[in-house]
Amino acid sequence: MIPDSLTQGQFDTVYNFLSLVIASQLFTALFMLIALPRILPRYRQAITVAIVVCGIAAYHYFRIFDSFKASFVTDSVGGTGTYSQAVGQSFNEGYRYVDWLLTVPLLLLELIAVLALARAIQKRLIIQLIPAAALMIILGYPGEISTDNTVRVVFGLLSLIPFAYILYVLFVQLTKSLQKQPSSVRGTLSKLRYLILVSWLVYPLAYALPLLSISGSDAWVLKQAGYSIADIVAKAVYALIIFSVARQKSFEDDPEFARREMSEEDRVSLDG
Amino acid sequence: MIPDSLTQGQFDTVYNFLSLVIASQLFTALFMLIALPRILPRYRQAITVAIVVCGIAAYHYFRIFDSFKASFVTDSVGGTGTYSQAVGQSFNEGYRYVDWLLTVPLLLLELIAVLALARAIQKRLIIQLIPAAALMIILGYPGEISTDNTVRVVFGLLSLIPFAYILYVLFVQLTKSLQKQPSSVRGTLSKLRYLILVSWLVYPLAYALPLLSISGSDAWVLKQAGYSIADIVAKAVYALIIFSVARQKSFEDDPEFARREMSEEDRVSLDG
Repeated sequence: MIPDSLTQGQFDTVYNFLSLVIASQLFTALFMLIALPRILPRYRQAITVAIVVCGIAAYHYFRIFDSFKASFVTDSVGGTGTYSQAVGQSFNEGYRYVDWLLTVPLLLLELIAVLALARAIQKRLIIQLIPAAALMIILGYPGEISTDNTVRVVFGLLSLIPFAYILYVLFVQLTKSLQKQPSSVRGTLSKLRYLILVSWLVYPLAYALPLLSISGSDAWVLKQAGYSIADIVAKAVYALIIFSVARQKSFEDDPEFARREMSEEDRVSLDG
Repeated sequence: MIPDSLTQGQFDTVYNFLSLVIASQLFTALFMLIALPRILPRYRQAITVAIVVCGIAAYHYFRIFDSFKASFVTDSVGGTGTYSQAVGQSFNEGYRYVDWLLTVPLLLLELIAVLALARAIQKRLIIQLIPAAALMIILGYPGEISTDNTVRVVFGLLSLIPFAYILYVLFVQLTKSLQKQPSSVRGTLSKLRYLILVSWLVYPLAYALPLLSISGSDAWVLKQAGYSIADIVAKAVYALIIFSVARQKSFEDDPEFARREMSEEDRVSLDG
């Protein structure tokens, strides 16, 4: 539930977190767009998806930021007042679900693409993971917008089924494919699954807050900050790790490419 | 503290300084984006980071500019009045911290990347400098938003610890790595550390102003001008120096590249 009022400090905290997400997503996308020629073509599909994910997130955060700014007003002067809900406006939390519906399946696609597996395995992973990711978000939405706790519990639990399935595919089925990755990126890719696990767990926890009767403005501010940090980690930080994996694999696939891209000293240490 | 009122001259001064920063960052980023093919691929990572830093700064200055413009109103006509704080708006100084949280670690990454050191040394420098830079900004924030001078002093002093550590790494540990740089850029890189030192010192000085009971609208305008100049020097000017180092190193690494990029006369002086 959106709180009736916020202190100036609470308002500024949410304001700054939402803006931080815009900057993080937008400039991670820009970085990868500029750096795209600096990985081999075979990994550019993964990074193109990553650019699109960060771009979609930036777009939705522009909307969320504007929606938040319009939803609270103060009649005080100089940043010392209390903000109350604006008449005729309401903060649209549903934007997050629209964002996730598009970005969450694409996040898994990024991971599959950077692995550059055999076509058959790649296709199987896509069929396993992408519909499950979309289903997870779709099932969460009715619970999120409902004010009835029973509806929230039922859809929350339903949504956890595809989430559990995604984790099963990532931590069990994918393990064999990871063994075939170059040793220099195997550890990173394996740990990346824990980044997904931990950052994605923020969402069901935030979803459960109203069930635990944790409400009030402090809890709401914490939830917005939590969503913001989770979105930065799950999309921008995640993308940069995928990019570094793509770059490392490019070097190993093509020594001539590595020679052009790296300094003399780097190459000595790569060989060694 | 934000002053209750500003003269027309003070309002215009802040307005123009904030706009100057937008123009400087945006077009430094654009210049480097266009000039990116004119350095060797191995230095493009450094310049890509520099472009992103200037882009992030431009984004935040757009926000700061809009926030400033909305925070003060005048009812006079033709630029002859006094500006007072607008009802329901407040100037968001916190944006600066959001900007620095992202850009300050990246500024050090730029420097590390352009050195093109062996991977192990590069990795060590990143581990030493990047978390320290983020910690420095995070520790400053609670002091900046607090109205309690004790809180301001405590967090200010805590924030100086990672700052001192960064200076130690730059001026002591980095010296050995600088000796391995080509002689033509060694001096520039060494002096660049003083640019960091001097421009970064503006921030703790501005932070300390309220402690020295220096307040009022003149002090506030001076602080905004100081921040603006420091941000231009620490990001845009800094980036252009990094770019010139990258270009010089490109010429020395690859005489064929230098031949294509330089005029006959230039090359004679490079040989000499």
